[in-house]
Amino acid sequence: MSFSFCLTASDGAARAGAMTTAHGVVQTPAFMPCGTQAAVKGVPHDDVRAAGTEILLGNTYHLMLRPGAERAAALGGLHGFMRWPLPILTDSGGFQVMSLAALRKVTEEGVTFRSHLDGARLELTPERAVEVQILLGSDIAMQLDECVRLPAERAEIERAMQLSLRWAERCKRAFDKAGPGRALFGIVQGGDDLHLREDSVRALTALGFDGYAIGGLAVGETQTVMLEVVERTAAALPADRPRYLMGVGTPSDILQAVARGIDMFDCVLPTRNGRHGLAFTRFGPINIKNARHADDPRPLDAESRCPAARDFSRAYLHHLFRSGELLGGTLLSIVNLYYYQDLVAGARAAIAAGRFADFAAATMAAWASKGDLEDA
Amino acid sequence: MSFSFCLTASDGAARAGAMTTAHGVVQTPAFMPCGTQAAVKGVPHDDVRAAGTEILLGNTYHLMLRPGAERAAALGGLHGFMRWPLPILTDSGGFQVMSLAALRKVTEEGVTFRSHLDGARLELTPERAVEVQILLGSDIAMQLDECVRLPAERAEIERAMQLSLRWAERCKRAFDKAGPGRALFGIVQGGDDLHLREDSVRALTALGFDGYAIGGLAVGETQTVMLEVVERTAAALPADRPRYLMGVGTPSDILQAVARGIDMFDCVLPTRNGRHGLAFTRFGPINIKNARHADDPRPLDAESRCPAARDFSRAYLHHLFRSGELLGGTLLSIVNLYYYQDLVAGARAAIAAGRFADFAAATMAAWASKGDLEDA
Repeated sequence: MSFSFCLTASDGAARAGAMTTAHGVVQTPAFMPCGTQAAVKGVPHDDVRAAGTEILLGNTYHLMLRPGAERAAALGGLHGFMRWPLPILTDSGGFQVMSLAALRKVTEEGVTFRSHLDGARLELTPERAVEVQILLGSDIAMQLDECVRLPAERAEIERAMQLSLRWAERCKRAFDKAGPGRALFGIVQGGDDLHLREDSVRALTALGFDGYAIGGLAVGETQTVMLEVVERTAAALPADRPRYLMGVGTPSDILQAVARGIDMFDCVLPTRNGRHGLAFTRFGPINIKNARHADDPRPLDAESRCPAARDFSRAYLHHLFRSGELLGGTLLSIVNLYYYQDLVAGARAAIAAGRFADFAAATMAAWASKGDLEDA
Repeated sequence: MSFSFCLTASDGAARAGAMTTAHGVVQTPAFMPCGTQAAVKGVPHDDVRAAGTEILLGNTYHLMLRPGAERAAALGGLHGFMRWPLPILTDSGGFQVMSLAALRKVTEEGVTFRSHLDGARLELTPERAVEVQILLGSDIAMQLDECVRLPAERAEIERAMQLSLRWAERCKRAFDKAGPGRALFGIVQGGDDLHLREDSVRALTALGFDGYAIGGLAVGETQTVMLEVVERTAAALPADRPRYLMGVGTPSDILQAVARGIDMFDCVLPTRNGRHGLAFTRFGPINIKNARHADDPRPLDAESRCPAARDFSRAYLHHLFRSGELLGGTLLSIVNLYYYQDLVAGARAAIAAGRFADFAAATMAAWASKGDLEDA
């Protein structure tokens, strides 16, 4: 099965569609939970799937360090290794090299760095980033790019953007060896400079990729700036390719990015917040560690599709966190994964029905009215 | 449904039977996972049940501190609070008071201590221990006793045993208020002194309990001493009541205690060892953190009934532990719960078939031959 993408509905700039990969179909807008180290933190695979997950994200940086790309390949690739039968997208490793590794040095050739695990000296080039992702068996691989934290000087943003373009071309050449059925996405860079973003889009689309990501956002800028870049960049990207906003975001970020034509998201928030006692619900975020929940017999959401949100009282979930029971983090991570998957499923249905703006407005209004974060 | 126990088969001193409680039937020999703080550490309830668990243990000491007995009662008792629909046995709190609490002082009246959580001054009397267990809604409550670590002077063992007998009588009186359908077990004490054990049995059976536990073992003595005490004590207990060996033990302990007429067990080993990377399998214990497993594509046990033991490679489980992914501890805890439940299910079937000695010998021989603990 070769990679393909088709739009099934649109509503303003919002789009609904379907990506076909060798491991199955992914409906868009899609949310990809982070399976950083070949596991979604604290959540059994069955629960990840039951939440409605159709595609998982793996982190190349982590996986190339441990278990190692060649070892993963020998063990059946990431799909076989972690026993995940559905599609997998892997990032290129570039972002984590920048944020986690020590003594990194970026050159035209690639980036050299020391592993944050054992200090081993490693090199990641565009060719190696693609090779690792092929060894991992990713359905969707990402080009190696350089991501700059904002705010930054225009010259620095432009340098990194131009370098990312040259790396994009090298990744594309290296990816020709991947064989059929796999996809490679280019990554638009350019920081908060709309002209640089347009230059990046022009050059990437001239090269031609199976899909396009918008990188270098959610790295310190305001939501307003992020959404302006998303809006202008998405509008410039080809309509017939999926668009992926990397590392984003909150439910509000996601709805507003969908409204601007984004199809794919990944974020650690559902599981990270879940481990820290923050539940996403239809009524807004709930900090279950708050003492007010200690005697509350109500579930998080009696109408939820999620057993953990429906079956357990807030008092019990509160107790698990107060008692340091890891099951609490697992249950809230599951609650949040269901929430995020229901959010994008709701978006898909609303787009198909031509009422996405109403759906987004109603979702955010319910959040504003009943969450308990104000005094968390 | 009132509490009852009937024997269905015996093979030498080994017995198979069924306990009926208000929350369902428990087949014996039975293994009770520890739901210490209203959760089996790291394991979702569905997996605890799927492993074959028919009865859970809750720890009164932990639960009276948090969430608190009165709060738990208001939230539906332990069954409603944690959403566990099957039988629950609670200990009396005495053992944890001795091992966890600070500044404890034992008097005729009971034990005063400071909470290990916040230093609050608390008192546990036989009457309060029963009251707390009634509030928790336990199907099987345990008398308050005083447990002495071995080795100890005979005079000290005898003093604690006699005090435990007087507390047993007070617990029995207090338990009359519990209403029908619930059971109270007495606890035989007497350390490693067989005469004291016999005195304890005589006095307890004269009072009359729904079942009898053997306490004060697995507290520092050798397995040989433990098994001798078990054998002599079990033989002295009435045949028509369940016998519970508290806090025991390894698979070997369990098989040898079943051979001596024990019906019920609880132990933290399956989950504690699972969290630390030790898997119980038909082939013996496997330390999954051992580097030898890093490239091993084989599952822990391809023939296992347990999905985690059957579906994931040793290499993947090894990776999860090396990467600090909590999912590893969850999966190995599940593997171990299945192992323990399959062990007692195998014992039940073997007793019914009159071949328990062969079953026990074959189980331990397989362990001795293939585990990897020798170099763990």
